[in-house]
Order: sequence, then C-alpha cells, then structure tokens
Amino acid sequence: MADALADAARPIALRYFRGQNQDIVNKEVGGFDPVTRADREIEQAMRSILADRRPNDAILGEEFGNTTGTSGFTWVLDPIDGTRGFMSGTPTWGVLVAVNDGDQPILGLIDQPYTGERFMGGLGRQELLHQKMRTPLQTKSTSSLSDATIFTTFPEVGSNADGNGFDALADQCKLTRYGMDCYAYALLAAGQIDLVVEAALNPYDIQAPIAVVHSAGGIVTDWKGGTAQNGGRAIAAANANIHTKALEILSKF
Amino acid sequence: MADALADAARPIALRYFRGQNQDIVNKEVGGFDPVTRADREIEQAMRSILADRRPNDAILGEEFGNTTGTSGFTWVLDPIDGTRGFMSGTPTWGVLVAVNDGDQPILGLIDQPYTGERFMGGLGRQELLHQKMRTPLQTKSTSSLSDATIFTTFPEVGSNADGNGFDALADQCKLTRYGMDCYAYALLAAGQIDLVVEAALNPYDIQAPIAVVHSAGGIVTDWKGGTAQNGGRAIAAANANIHTKALEILSKF
Repeated sequence: MADALADAARPIALRYFRGQNQDIVNKEVGGFDPVTRADREIEQAMRSILADRRPNDAILGEEFGNTTGTSGFTWVLDPIDGTRGFMSGTPTWGVLVAVNDGDQPILGLIDQPYTGERFMGGLGRQELLHQKMRTPLQTKSTSSLSDATIFTTFPEVGSNADGNGFDALADQCKLTRYGMDCYAYALLAAGQIDLVVEAALNPYDIQAPIAVVHSAGGIVTDWKGGTAQNGGRAIAAANANIHTKALEILSKF
Repeated sequence: MADALADAARPIALRYFRGQNQDIVNKEVGGFDPVTRADREIEQAMRSILADRRPNDAILGEEFGNTTGTSGFTWVLDPIDGTRGFMSGTPTWGVLVAVNDGDQPILGLIDQPYTGERFMGGLGRQELLHQKMRTPLQTKSTSSLSDATIFTTFPEVGSNADGNGFDALADQCKLTRYGMDCYAYALLAAGQIDLVVEAALNPYDIQAPIAVVHSAGGIVTDWKGGTAQNGGRAIAAANANIHTKALEILSKF
C-alpha cells in the first residue's frame, strides 16, 4: 500500500525533476514553480489512492494538511522532502510515506525516484529495493564518536543554539557531511553512516525516517531522548551506544 | 577512448561502493581501506588500457603520478573524486577523465557509476548519457547573483581566506548547497545550478570538469580569471555574465 503511493509519485516527480517540463511551467501565467507543482500533484495522487483504498484512515500531508479518519491510522506524506536539492538537480531528495498507529510511526518509506532506490522499514520488513534487487537494511555498530560520520542538511542547522549543539557534536566525529536531506537517514539505515542531526523539522519530514531507521536497528529521538515524531530537533543514530554518547552532548543545548 | 576508461572503472568502483565487498577487505591484514583499493585498482585498469591503445600519451593520475609521453597529449585521471562521499554512500562522487593537449583540457568526462550517469564534453560533444538516453548539456543563462544557486564541497572551503571569499560570494546568491564534489560541475553543465566555487584543488580534480563545463557553455577559471587547470582555487560559472559578477567578489580574496 505504501509502495503503491510511492509508485504513483515517481513518474510525477521525474516529470518535473531537472526542469524537463519547464517550458510548460514557464508558459503558465502566475503559475507555480516546478517544485510546488510536483509537490501538489504527487500529494493529490497519493490522497486519491488512499481515498479509494483506505477511506477510514487519517492523512497528514505537507501540501493539503490534515484529513481526519476513524481507523486510528494516519498516513503521513511528504511528497518531496528536500526541495532545495530537487531544485538543484541533486539526487538526494525523496518521497516520504509513513503510517502512524496513533502512538508512533510503524511503517516508513524513503523513495528516491531518480536513482530508483526505495528504502522501506517497519512491520517486519527492512530493505532497500534497487533495480529489482532487495538488500536488507542494517545500521552500523560504530560505538565511538571519533569513528563516526555525521550528516546534516545545512551547516546552519536551524537557530544559533541548534547550530552550536550540532557543532559541539560534529567536533567529536571523524567526518561531517552536508546537503543530503532525507537521503541521509536512508544511508544511516543502510549502514553507511552513523549520525544524522537536524532541527526545525516538521512531523512529515521525520516520521518515515523514524520507521526506516528503527527497523534497521537504529534510534531516532529528539535532542533530549524523547520522541521526535512531532518534528523540531531530531537525532538519528546507528545504535544505542553511539546514540547515548551523542545525546550527552546535544542535550546540553 | 575516454568512454573505454570510464567503462573499465565502473564495475571496480561499484564492487567497493557501500562496502559490498568489505568482508574481503577486512580479512586482509594491514590492508588498504576500500576507497584506496578502489582508487588504485581503477587507475591501474585505466593505465593498462592507455598503455595498450595510447602508448605515446602522457598520464597524470592521482594514485600513480606522472608517466611521460611523446605525443603531446596527457590523460588526467582521478579514479574516485569525492572519497568522503564514496565512504559515506552518497551517489555524488565520480570518476574523472580528461585529455590535455599541452595547452588545456580538450575533452572531459565525469562518470557517476551508481546512478549510471556520464557527463561528457569536448571535441564537439556535450552530453549526458543516462540509461541509454543522450541529453545535450547546456548551462543556464542566469545573469544575476541574486538568482543564482552556488555549490561547494565543504563549508570550510580550504583556508580561512578561501572561506571568506566563498562566504562573501554566497551571501549574494539565492541558494547555497554543499557536499556534491565533482557532481556539482556536472549539474552546472547540465543547466541545473549557476556557480561552483572551490579551493585547494589538485590538477586531476578540475581538468575534466573544465572541459565538461566549457563544452556546455560555461566558464572555469581561478579566482583571478586565469586558468584553473593547475588546481588551487577554482570558480565554475554558467556563463560569462555571472562569471564576471562572481569574480568581482572573489578576486578581492
């Protein structure tokens, strides 16, 4: 079902990615920019499938807000996470789909249409689907910050206090990298990196990554160790050991 | 011929990318890390092809240095540009191949094996080859810094003076993004972004990007407007207009 939503999103996203259809957009007087168009068209396509197949579930989407439901389940949708990456042509944005059972995200999917990668986790599954190959997702066992690779989207990381917290942690790590948006959580779940730290998130930015990372053995919390599902500050860590060490630093900010 | 080198590089790079072969590496006592292994094996494979098919050409490679020649042509090879990206699992590193005629790079290729993209320019060609589709490369016509998207690999950008120059320029731009390595030059050639600014480059980091960007209508120089082919500081711009405006700022640093 989450797959069906991502399948519907892919061709729409790719139609707009790298301005392949910019002529049409430019001709439209007072029209939306391509990212906004792609965002809205994707969410509409996903909502249409849900209305048909899961009419009793609630929906929380970036573009069209909240739709109430009666089942207790909420679909959390970010049609294009990483719009700056999308606008710049980098293959590091993603389509995010999560299912929340009222308590937490129980299933999540990070889809990168251009590379054709789908990272999925929850309900007993944790895998990367790429070119018809399925690879299990498993986070790293790195236990020392001095061996860790840390990612964040912007060097600025939200407010000044947020940035100071990030810098204090990054200073202890081996390698700091920027600019990956949701793709960083996918790399963490795939055992490539150790930490992702962000701030000023929305719930729809983080719920799918939470489910994917948890399914692969990692942990996602806010900077105090509480739930990150409501957005704001988040830390994703490859395992409990390194999560504890990172929180010791971040919790002071 | 440049294609043949990149074709030889792809399977070697992908064998090591994302640690798919880490067991083998870990069993090797005192062995190289996977990036170094991939770097060396790729350059050896490329040199072997050149020894066979272009024995009179010179070679400048990252791993095995300079091989002299008699033809006046030099092959400039960076087997994996963006080793930090490679180590982190991001699809933003690349295999770089350039041909220098003794005066300047006349042909260049930026290959991304994981996405399967090959950006090539020079000798009358300028194209992206992706999934058997060929798309012409053409830079953007952006003329104002306030409309420009600027990329660099690290927020630190070399020395403090380098960083100050970058910051002064980026402050005038619409959007700043990080972390793409050679892939940023490919995006510039493909008409997705407007400026790439870097420092502390080696000749083999920049010669292929120079040829690709020039072929697509862009300009690459050092921060004073001279040649960038010897490394150091470089600016790549989508067109002469925006190059001039960026140089007005960078040349002060």
